[in-house]
Amino acid sequence: MEELKGFLRWASVSAQGAHGEDVRGCAGWLRDHLAGLGLAAELVETAGQPIVRAQGGKTGGKRVIVYGHYDVQPEDPRGEWLTEPFEPVERAGYLYGRGTTDDKGQLWAHVKGVEAVLRQAGELGVEVVFLVEGEEECGGSGLEDYVVANAGALREGLVGCVVSDTSMYGPGRPAVTYGLRGTAGLEVRVHGPGRDLHSGQYGGAVGNPVQALAWMLGECVGRDGVVEVPGFYEGVGEMAMWERENIERLGYDEAALAAEAGVAALWGEQGRGALERMWARPTFEVNGIYGGYTGEGGKTIIPSSATAKLSMRLVPGQAWRQVVEATVSHLERLCPEFARLEVLDSGGADPVLMDVDSELMRAGLRALEAGFGVEPELIRCGGSIPVVSVLERELGAPVLLMGLGLDSDGAHSPNERFAVEHMVKGAKASAALLMQLGESQA
Amino acid sequence: MEELKGFLRWASVSAQGAHGEDVRGCAGWLRDHLAGLGLAAELVETAGQPIVRAQGGKTGGKRVIVYGHYDVQPEDPRGEWLTEPFEPVERAGYLYGRGTTDDKGQLWAHVKGVEAVLRQAGELGVEVVFLVEGEEECGGSGLEDYVVANAGALREGLVGCVVSDTSMYGPGRPAVTYGLRGTAGLEVRVHGPGRDLHSGQYGGAVGNPVQALAWMLGECVGRDGVVEVPGFYEGVGEMAMWERENIERLGYDEAALAAEAGVAALWGEQGRGALERMWARPTFEVNGIYGGYTGEGGKTIIPSSATAKLSMRLVPGQAWRQVVEATVSHLERLCPEFARLEVLDSGGADPVLMDVDSELMRAGLRALEAGFGVEPELIRCGGSIPVVSVLERELGAPVLLMGLGLDSDGAHSPNERFAVEHMVKGAKASAALLMQLGESQA
Repeated sequence: MEELKGFLRWASVSAQGAHGEDVRGCAGWLRDHLAGLGLAAELVETAGQPIVRAQGGKTGGKRVIVYGHYDVQPEDPRGEWLTEPFEPVERAGYLYGRGTTDDKGQLWAHVKGVEAVLRQAGELGVEVVFLVEGEEECGGSGLEDYVVANAGALREGLVGCVVSDTSMYGPGRPAVTYGLRGTAGLEVRVHGPGRDLHSGQYGGAVGNPVQALAWMLGECVGRDGVVEVPGFYEGVGEMAMWERENIERLGYDEAALAAEAGVAALWGEQGRGALERMWARPTFEVNGIYGGYTGEGGKTIIPSSATAKLSMRLVPGQAWRQVVEATVSHLERLCPEFARLEVLDSGGADPVLMDVDSELMRAGLRALEAGFGVEPELIRCGGSIPVVSVLERELGAPVLLMGLGLDSDGAHSPNERFAVEHMVKGAKASAALLMQLGESQA
Repeated sequence: MEELKGFLRWASVSAQGAHGEDVRGCAGWLRDHLAGLGLAAELVETAGQPIVRAQGGKTGGKRVIVYGHYDVQPEDPRGEWLTEPFEPVERAGYLYGRGTTDDKGQLWAHVKGVEAVLRQAGELGVEVVFLVEGEEECGGSGLEDYVVANAGALREGLVGCVVSDTSMYGPGRPAVTYGLRGTAGLEVRVHGPGRDLHSGQYGGAVGNPVQALAWMLGECVGRDGVVEVPGFYEGVGEMAMWERENIERLGYDEAALAAEAGVAALWGEQGRGALERMWARPTFEVNGIYGGYTGEGGKTIIPSSATAKLSMRLVPGQAWRQVVEATVSHLERLCPEFARLEVLDSGGADPVLMDVDSELMRAGLRALEAGFGVEPELIRCGGSIPVVSVLERELGAPVLLMGLGLDSDGAHSPNERFAVEHMVKGAKASAALLMQLGESQA
């Protein structure tokens, strides 16, 4: 636990340039720690943040890649944290701090899984390659570039990749995640007058770019929860029958979700349950908006610009580049003549849907049962892990999503946490997986 | 000029608590300066910032009140200033700095007008009372409270009030302003989930308050420039025939305004000219908006809230309290069920339309002609001076709006400036006005 706290103390916020040294320092710390376990550990430089690569175990046989990320989300809004975001604190069975669940704590289960096998069995019966990136939260392409460039070597003996960066179905209920939503991100700015103008002198004569942005965003999602960007739902299919039955069987508690999210009632596309909407339906969110005077008190101006950070969650059938294109076209069409739309940034990751019958998936289900003592569920996840589609596509092997977090952990939110018990059982499951894969080739 | 620079160096931003000492320091500096001219000067404490009151001249006869404000707008956006906002610099005939035109520089013309009469005539033939407040830019009620409480004493011998806090018609073209728009300000916050939520985990299940705010603001102003708040235009009348003819005669240059504002084309209610829209039509502006993640890079969240700073410009027939009420009702009706509207702040000032035939108005027109050497125009102003309606109503005397600024001075904007020539000629006009009023009673 103290080792993990050392890992968490690094403010490795990859989206903020000011944290550049923290990100790199964190990578170096992790490399040294993995080397201390006897693995061949190194920093692999990329165009952005370095990848921590560490390799160990029996060579020439089966290989498993463990993916994780050592970077974290910004701590913003800072004022809502009850304890310091980068000074992890244990309280009532949880470890609190930025990165505890996303993803340092979850990665730690595999670090400890490897350590446990090494201590108990003396050696790893399977070759383990850690690939831990530092650009998951900022959409960097370093890991992708590396995997593409080294796909041939990485494929040798590869059974598949293991990723713990998603949620369990609930407390004490482990799960294998077979589907991830994709994501499309877009930052746009609407330009108005050349400078902030006095709203008394100019009001009535000059268009307001915040008003323009409100018109535009107002026509991106309807009050019925349906996204209004033309072409947005093109290719989106319905869930398979076994998935509907699985959802039915799970008996998801929507009231508990509402209470946990702090809303009076859930909301979304009418006629579909919350679990279906989160797992298998695409969404359009404004993640942030700003324009004009946002300080204390008032300032009677017509602002010179307004900016929105948008992101969409995608499901199988959608491709992020097409969704970004369709959204930009829609916004351009909606932008009034008095304003000008500028696209500042865009990026994304395609959705993933895994075959639940592969060898690695089945081994993962058994390992989770061994670690947690209960039968795991098969679930999908509303979140996105850009690298999963890259790993699957480039390495031609399945990806086992063995999430150890909880939706209530507050990933990306203030007071992020991770259940200590789940980390311990997750480490046991990781060790069980490595032992199984090692035995199956012996 | 050096004295004025000393006045301008005080960062007397009344809307920001952090500048509290600068505001008070500025008031003390002005009191000392007016005392140095031989006036009986004092700080009058209020519930907010102090009023600088200074009195001099012949008692028992006619009295004129000179109103001004020593507080200024925030300097934000700081990065767009070419020189320091609170380090005034003279360049190419202009003095640059926050407060140069709004209102320290304009007030200075009257300070110098009094000084000139005292030096040349040896005494003031009329009693002059300076009332200079420090809450004009933050909507404080200190001056109003003072005027209401002391109306009886202030009314004695009162010819009227003189205010220089508006614009001339153009460079070298002085004017008396006979109408001001009112203002209604409103800050609202739309609350969504109890905290920022991960848009992957919760997206599709929980409503987004920024999206809600976009819907709401999108239905406050139509794409035709008409405000859609029910009842907003109630009581709003059309301009008098002489005003239409006056506008026609002035031949306002709309293309020049567009160029100066940095827009490709002007925009507003269809079928009405820009000058009519700015002088005699009400508006609805979003002055600022913020919600969710606004830092560097992206953050895939459903924000917990979104905030908008709104202000409306009002014309005769509208009352600010009713407009605020109507707007809040409209927003509440538009707020979706998944969100909650909170009104953080509101305030306002009613519009003013002056009788152009009063004694003080006529004296003002003559004084401007004496100071500038050209016949002044009669104009209205799109801006608001909350205190003008208070002075007129409580003191039962006309208010002479003798603006010395230019619309292109950039009041409330970066690189605010004031033409040195207009300050000099304005001081001459101020002296001429005092001499005239003094002679007329002699």
